[in-house]
Amino acid sequence: MASPGSAFEYASANLAGAVEALKELLRVPSISALPDHAADTRRAADLVAAMLDLAGLEEARAVGDPGGGYPVVRGDWLGAPGAPTLLLYGHYDVQPPDPLDEWVSPPFEPVERDGRVYARGADDNKGQLVAIIKGVEAVLKTAGRLPVNVKFLVEGEEESGGKALPSYLRDHAAEAAGDAVFVADSQWVTFDRPTIVTALRGLVYVEVEAAGARQDLHSGTYGGIAPNPLNALAWLLAELKGRDGRVRIPGFYDAVRPPGDVERQAWASLGIDEAALLRDEVGAAAYFGEEGQDLHERRWGRPTLDVHGIRGGFTGEGAKTVIPARATAKVSMRLVPAQDPRQVYEAFTRFVEDATPPGVTFTVRPINIDPPVEASPAGRGVKALARALERGFDRAPAFIRMGGSVPVTTAFHEALGVELLVTGFGLPDARLHSPNENFALSQLEGGIRSVAALLEEFGRQG
Amino acid sequence: MASPGSAFEYASANLAGAVEALKELLRVPSISALPDHAADTRRAADLVAAMLDLAGLEEARAVGDPGGGYPVVRGDWLGAPGAPTLLLYGHYDVQPPDPLDEWVSPPFEPVERDGRVYARGADDNKGQLVAIIKGVEAVLKTAGRLPVNVKFLVEGEEESGGKALPSYLRDHAAEAAGDAVFVADSQWVTFDRPTIVTALRGLVYVEVEAAGARQDLHSGTYGGIAPNPLNALAWLLAELKGRDGRVRIPGFYDAVRPPGDVERQAWASLGIDEAALLRDEVGAAAYFGEEGQDLHERRWGRPTLDVHGIRGGFTGEGAKTVIPARATAKVSMRLVPAQDPRQVYEAFTRFVEDATPPGVTFTVRPINIDPPVEASPAGRGVKALARALERGFDRAPAFIRMGGSVPVTTAFHEALGVELLVTGFGLPDARLHSPNENFALSQLEGGIRSVAALLEEFGRQG
Repeated sequence: MASPGSAFEYASANLAGAVEALKELLRVPSISALPDHAADTRRAADLVAAMLDLAGLEEARAVGDPGGGYPVVRGDWLGAPGAPTLLLYGHYDVQPPDPLDEWVSPPFEPVERDGRVYARGADDNKGQLVAIIKGVEAVLKTAGRLPVNVKFLVEGEEESGGKALPSYLRDHAAEAAGDAVFVADSQWVTFDRPTIVTALRGLVYVEVEAAGARQDLHSGTYGGIAPNPLNALAWLLAELKGRDGRVRIPGFYDAVRPPGDVERQAWASLGIDEAALLRDEVGAAAYFGEEGQDLHERRWGRPTLDVHGIRGGFTGEGAKTVIPARATAKVSMRLVPAQDPRQVYEAFTRFVEDATPPGVTFTVRPINIDPPVEASPAGRGVKALARALERGFDRAPAFIRMGGSVPVTTAFHEALGVELLVTGFGLPDARLHSPNENFALSQLEGGIRSVAALLEEFGRQG
Repeated sequence: MASPGSAFEYASANLAGAVEALKELLRVPSISALPDHAADTRRAADLVAAMLDLAGLEEARAVGDPGGGYPVVRGDWLGAPGAPTLLLYGHYDVQPPDPLDEWVSPPFEPVERDGRVYARGADDNKGQLVAIIKGVEAVLKTAGRLPVNVKFLVEGEEESGGKALPSYLRDHAAEAAGDAVFVADSQWVTFDRPTIVTALRGLVYVEVEAAGARQDLHSGTYGGIAPNPLNALAWLLAELKGRDGRVRIPGFYDAVRPPGDVERQAWASLGIDEAALLRDEVGAAAYFGEEGQDLHERRWGRPTLDVHGIRGGFTGEGAKTVIPARATAKVSMRLVPAQDPRQVYEAFTRFVEDATPPGVTFTVRPINIDPPVEASPAGRGVKALARALERGFDRAPAFIRMGGSVPVTTAFHEALGVELLVTGFGLPDARLHSPNENFALSQLEGGIRSVAALLEEFGRQG
């Protein structure tokens, strides 16, 4: 096998070609959420398949979803029997570009400025996807083979909550089987540190409906005797999470596994300026979180509970003295390893039942029940990724967690049970989902090098 | 002076004429809330002025509001120097008639069926207003004079929240001065008991805005560190009124004057079927109210606090994991004698300030600050009204309170400080504000008799 040096040289020598390939893909407004762009979105799938074919992958193709969703683009290289298999994820659809008038250059006319490509999807996810494809290509073209098997699984519904990929993974579990999945769909935590995500929080999102009287009542006539669903929800919500920031559902924290020393040290080494984060990102007068936990624990290592909205009664201008018949609160809990979302959901419903005041009926409806996922820094694949990123970008990566979920990681975790290798090549100001989204050419090159290195590092395991 | 017997005889003999006068007034769609009916509403004012003139009142006239509101109809009889002065209130405007298709006969074509007149405004307030005018007329026509002085103050903006009458009372305080005001704008509490209202609750209605971060935040990324205005409101609202139904604002109950024995006995004598009220009116599985208080205390004798609506965040279908930057709750407190709404408002704002969690700012905005009003059964005017109703309807009245406010009583109370004589001639199923509103002819006759008797009974005081 050729040394990665050759692949790195190939990457540098062919960077201009990679940029052109990226720009071609960026010119396709593959907005999966907008039906007017259905043809564009399918065209992007075909472009990705052609790019895979050009890179030397076998049977590169867009696999249509009989349910009518956008295709999953596939392409394999399975010439390393006995070696591990790496799944390579990406998505070819993009967010809508609004608001258009805030773009310096048109969102679907990619332009280079100051070493970055500007366009919708430049970072999320076309730039990162092209880095992966070109990283595989660099090794294949220089070594003639890969040290591991790879399977591309590229979806077109990431921005529209589609079900094509989860459905594909369920229906083609054997064909999609592998040892780990590589997901590059986020950003660096700081401008100077490649970043590995070691866990993503799960989500239990529910609606709680409170029903009182048969119809809305006047608070003059009935105030003092009628149950008020809004007051009842206030009691419930205040009791679910107290002023100490602790969730009071019995057993809620029992399964929480604290982060290990590697993660704690990694978080401390980030050198996050807490005052600047509060001022510039959160924009509040003070943080609010669970007592006795530091900033990183609170946002990455601990479960939490938030109220997202309360419907019912009167919210217009002025005064209406209504006691509403019904009111509904939307509430979610973010879960961490190794909390079980089903158990949490059931404990939640028991808590709600026990908290029901006289005259009111509470009904809980589940909306999301997604588990937390973990990519432990002790995992062999994650260790290989860390070495690969260090080689690709010439500096050691940071280990962080994500407070939110990336649905596709849950899908891979649930359908295939594979190890998750979660990173992102974008810089912190890549402006994904916003006007002037961009991807630095240095990140594209580092990404290509990192993927080339990952193939080798991942092959060393076992 | 002629005996009231003569006035009663006059009332019976001229009932048909009173009914015709009422029908003429009912044919005018004086819907003050609808600009298309401005001319109708003014025409109703002129009709009332003509009716007062016919009854023998002096200077009967519609007094236009220079501010453009509907006129206050005035008309006095001031020929009893040294005797007390009774203000007589009513309103000539009506609610819109919708939904039209539920009316058995058209809303502005009054029809008699089964001893009742059906039309919009039959009860509220044209029927009751005609009873007052014809009651005065009965005494004037039979005795040639009245035992007291009277001043009519009839407004045309009761159903549209107008300010013409309060403004008139402020600007013409001397001209409108009197010893008591008679208000007949409600219903009997049961089908067999004339009803006197001895107190109406006041209202402090506020908005509390909670502000957290500068902009809406994603609960994945920031859940656990960002202040959540909805959670903050839940804590505040849960603390304002606990599960025991007690308001926890310090000093909130200090000024509450418990009802006296007369009222307690009067309430007990109503024989309210609490289970039927819960089932048929409230329509809830159980009452909810302040611990240690009975049904009547809770709805009439005690202050309370209700949440009317909470704005902010996401309330659509499905899941949006937003931590809103801002959220607003609408909250009101109903007050009883002798709570001071200003003091309550100030104590509320102090409570909110003390309950502010880290990272959140609470702002309180007042919407209504209206005092409770009282018409004690021990008052001389109320005692006279009780005797008058007993003579007019041949049965002793009930004493109740109203849980809500009637703005005009507050206006009279605040502008003139007069004793309030609050009753209503309608039956419980008069359907005011609803299709098929009606007024029983027996109630019209009893109302005329009661007013005639009140003039005499009120003159006996002092």
